Amino acid sequence: MATGKKVVIIGGVAAGPKTAARLRRLDPTAEITIIERGHFISYAGCSLPYYIAGLVKQQKDLMTTPVGVPRDPAYFQKSFNVQVLNHTEATRIDRAAKQVEIRDAQGTRRLDYDVLVLATGVKPVVPKLPGVDRPNVFTLHRIEDAEGIKAAVGPTQCSAKEGDAHYFEHPPSHKNAVILGGGLIGVEMAEALVQCGCRVTIVEMLPQILPMLDWEMARLVQLHMESKGVRVLTETAATSIEGGERADVVAVPGERIPADLVLVAVGVRANGELAREAGLTIGPTGGIQVDPSMRTSDPAIYAVGDCTEDRHLVSGQPVFLSNGANANKQGRVAAGNIAGRSEQFPGVVGSAICKAFDFSAARTGLTEKEALELGYDAEYCIVPGPDKVHHYPGAKSVILKLVADRRTRKLLGAQAVGPGECAKRIDVAATALVAGMTVDQVANLDLCYAPPFSPPLDNLLTAANVLRNKLDGLVRGISAIEVKTRRDGFEDFVFLDVRTLPEYEAAHIAGTTVIPLGALRDRLGELPRDKEIVVFCQVSLRGYLAAILLGRSGFTRVRMMDGGVVAWPYEKVVAAK
Amino acid sequence: MATGKKVVIIGGVAAGPKTAARLRRLDPTAEITIIERGHFISYAGCSLPYYIAGLVKQQKDLMTTPVGVPRDPAYFQKSFNVQVLNHTEATRIDRAAKQVEIRDAQGTRRLDYDVLVLATGVKPVVPKLPGVDRPNVFTLHRIEDAEGIKAAVGPTQCSAKEGDAHYFEHPPSHKNAVILGGGLIGVEMAEALVQCGCRVTIVEMLPQILPMLDWEMARLVQLHMESKGVRVLTETAATSIEGGERADVVAVPGERIPADLVLVAVGVRANGELAREAGLTIGPTGGIQVDPSMRTSDPAIYAVGDCTEDRHLVSGQPVFLSNGANANKQGRVAAGNIAGRSEQFPGVVGSAICKAFDFSAARTGLTEKEALELGYDAEYCIVPGPDKVHHYPGAKSVILKLVADRRTRKLLGAQAVGPGECAKRIDVAATALVAGMTVDQVANLDLCYAPPFSPPLDNLLTAANVLRNKLDGLVRGISAIEVKTRRDGFEDFVFLDVRTLPEYEAAHIAGTTVIPLGALRDRLGELPRDKEIVVFCQVSLRGYLAAILLGRSGFTRVRMMDGGVVAWPYEKVVAAK
Repeated sequence: MATGKKVVIIGGVAAGPKTAARLRRLDPTAEITIIERGHFISYAGCSLPYYIAGLVKQQKDLMTTPVGVPRDPAYFQKSFNVQVLNHTEATRIDRAAKQVEIRDAQGTRRLDYDVLVLATGVKPVVPKLPGVDRPNVFTLHRIEDAEGIKAAVGPTQCSAKEGDAHYFEHPPSHKNAVILGGGLIGVEMAEALVQCGCRVTIVEMLPQILPMLDWEMARLVQLHMESKGVRVLTETAATSIEGGERADVVAVPGERIPADLVLVAVGVRANGELAREAGLTIGPTGGIQVDPSMRTSDPAIYAVGDCTEDRHLVSGQPVFLSNGANANKQGRVAAGNIAGRSEQFPGVVGSAICKAFDFSAARTGLTEKEALELGYDAEYCIVPGPDKVHHYPGAKSVILKLVADRRTRKLLGAQAVGPGECAKRIDVAATALVAGMTVDQVANLDLCYAPPFSPPLDNLLTAANVLRNKLDGLVRGISAIEVKTRRDGFEDFVFLDVRTLPEYEAAHIAGTTVIPLGALRDRLGELPRDKEIVVFCQVSLRGYLAAILLGRSGFTRVRMMDGGVVAWPYEKVVAAK
Repeated sequence: MATGKKVVIIGGVAAGPKTAARLRRLDPTAEITIIERGHFISYAGCSLPYYIAGLVKQQKDLMTTPVGVPRDPAYFQKSFNVQVLNHTEATRIDRAAKQVEIRDAQGTRRLDYDVLVLATGVKPVVPKLPGVDRPNVFTLHRIEDAEGIKAAVGPTQCSAKEGDAHYFEHPPSHKNAVILGGGLIGVEMAEALVQCGCRVTIVEMLPQILPMLDWEMARLVQLHMESKGVRVLTETAATSIEGGERADVVAVPGERIPADLVLVAVGVRANGELAREAGLTIGPTGGIQVDPSMRTSDPAIYAVGDCTEDRHLVSGQPVFLSNGANANKQGRVAAGNIAGRSEQFPGVVGSAICKAFDFSAARTGLTEKEALELGYDAEYCIVPGPDKVHHYPGAKSVILKLVADRRTRKLLGAQAVGPGECAKRIDVAATALVAGMTVDQVANLDLCYAPPFSPPLDNLLTAANVLRNKLDGLVRGISAIEVKTRRDGFEDFVFLDVRTLPEYEAAHIAGTTVIPLGALRDRLGELPRDKEIVVFCQVSLRGYLAAILLGRSGFTRVRMMDGGVVAWPYEKVVAAK
């Protein structure tokens, strides 16, 4: 196709360059111009924490192709015949005249367009907090931000290698870093700053970090981060950032936290002012509204990437999610449509993952909390297990949570945390969500099995089976949260650990009754018949068997605690080593 | 449910014990008996190569629960109230009387059944080869086989640890091992025996190892195995095994290969004699025919696990596949139906994976060869790429091959080989196959993205996009196999490498023309317009761009070679290090 169209793309980081490159491959004659406010284009924004940590060595690594060619304006000109105007801001869209007003060092001028593409991304939310404008208070959005953080950390370049203990080319910084916000960026940056030798505190207003996860799953990540030296304050709001020229304290109720640097990572919102001022429809989430072809309410204007509002394929609701992968897909779709093809972006299921020290934390679809808020009759399960056959060397734990709709038995969402392989299970679940599968269908998926790669029944399939058992009423579950609440309220019930004594001694929950499963049949007389019994084990397979045994033995009020000791999100009594 | 049924299960390794355990959970009163010919029950047959290699340390590790409880007859009696008769052979089924005749050391007797479950598994195919009955000629099927191989290798226990170089507690054996058959077991055992310090030769009759893969994908695994010291002879049939009391030579045409031990791993067939003699329907593949509820042609007799014939969800055809994961699923389905529930096993998509030294090799669905044989109008792509963002430490290569139906654009199959993370991509593809997705749907899947876990567009999605480009006619492909055939036939065409010179010098294919992509526009005059041009690069993204540029510059006979230099399955010229 050769349209000869004038195509102006506003935004040069991810979705914009993708749109340009794909469009050029489809259309030799389009006149393509990218407008970018900053200096850098087509860089790996998601890798900034790893650049700060020293895992990605050089700034240029963030913006070179796999064979080392820098993706700069000259590259786009030469390789794609795409003009890039960086250090240039788009200030206004004149839809009637089909012109964009731009401003650079030379002044203001107008560009004609036949098609305009908005790839304006997001901007970090900065709360109106006293002292937030001090120079050592950062957000992490652009390469310049990463350079500022690196300078504030000082010459303590860490040479962490994946899988190795990290070492320092210079002494560790011992700087105090305070991160406001425990979302994805806050968690990734906590690890990066610890790797730089900083003492790191996360201050989070919500009751949990990582709101992409349910509370108890996020809590397991938090406990792991705390074991790595990160201090995490939840339900805590910073009241001010104090200091002289530079910030040196973050004040929270009851405490002044020393801070050599502060990272504000409380969220992002769509960079949609241009679109809003031009009268384009903005969705209820604040993102630019687009149809599946990525067209805005003006058919001559497309929007792609993080600035747009997406449709969630599980809930059918509009959602606003930042996601570099979907930015790429949307750029491809928009380019196809501009070139006269007919392409559609189907929507998202909200898949996300982050690394937190030795843990992965991933999710797709709806959390239990989201499902309940949306009115689903949601059931869930929490199932820990090894990510390979348990006797294969290097098997590590994955803790899965699945959420399903009791009415339709459809999978609604999946979460995974732990040191084991989480991404695979969540990606499979994401695919099942797109296909609208029931948990019964998920349980029978034909996944690859060999001992170095998974247990005979993959963790996801086992979790689906546990959830089927709950949906079928074969066992009644109780969450660790509800158990804790009841215990805190001094409710009287038997909290029964059916593991072996060596397991109990290695780590247990305080205040439990212990009867190993193998002895349970002979010791039923020790259990009261007039009280509720909450039974659990390490992961709750034996808890399930015990619940069945108790039920068949005439105990009528038996519940199995999901996830067992492994997924208990509170303090445990651990044997001294 | 409490049926009180007499349930006899023949076979105690995988599907049988699973059926028993699930049935007991559903039904407190069923009288469940497992008949097992051998000594051991419920063991991890798939882990035998890792036990031989020393990765799994002790025999008992193969049959203990994750908390170390041995799964022996006493365990099944105590935990599940299931009687296990081992050292007991089922010799005949009397369907009219609903009895099984069994034989043990005490003699022959009959067991009544209301429901019979056949979980008789497979048996290794042993070719009628002179000398195959010598004591140091093995198959690998049972624990006793593994012990025999360990004894033949001698006291050279290797203590390989995953990810580490392996070391030997005793000197390496330096024994000569010959493996007849290059399928999954042959490949896994080649690695295991190399880890024991053996010199290993694989003798394979077919033109390739791993027939679960297409030739060129298997060839990449073969090249990797050869780089680890394994000798691989394809299109080679052993003519005899020679020696005195013990075998010491495997004869192949033109060569006598020294052999201190021989492993016969040429395939398996269903252990279906009992079923056949009882008049149950055997499917065209040799497996016992079952319906989705796992019932045989006699409604009182179920069959589960490897002895059954499966239905392939892509082709709709019956297939015979060994798979420990599906054995577990089928056991669960049969148990549910015996207990009066209504459960179905939907079928398989033929997912399989094996580890071969530093490579994984995985597949799901149909290979290109299988698709063509089944009459599909199949298109394919081969796309190498890093398994994480390329600048993230530890990123490793995955080479993906996708196959789709030109008519429906549905994905038909996927294969992955390489040192990178293959299982995730194939498991996602397997899920997409079950859902009947088109490559367009696969390309827009919402998978988890963060730099430590995948490129911004996961390898599978990128491969799906490449395949869409081919289906859409945006580029014409040519396979490495066709290129090689044409070169061997002295056909005249331009074989154009568009990589940079440093890349070319590091590794290249002999006899190519080199014009880096960046210089191609200026050097078009060097290319003849009357000849076909086959263009490629490292992975073939630049090859694709070059093909587009050439097409727009008036070259009409341009094709892109799939997979580039990375996936070239023949000799390369590699720079000395």
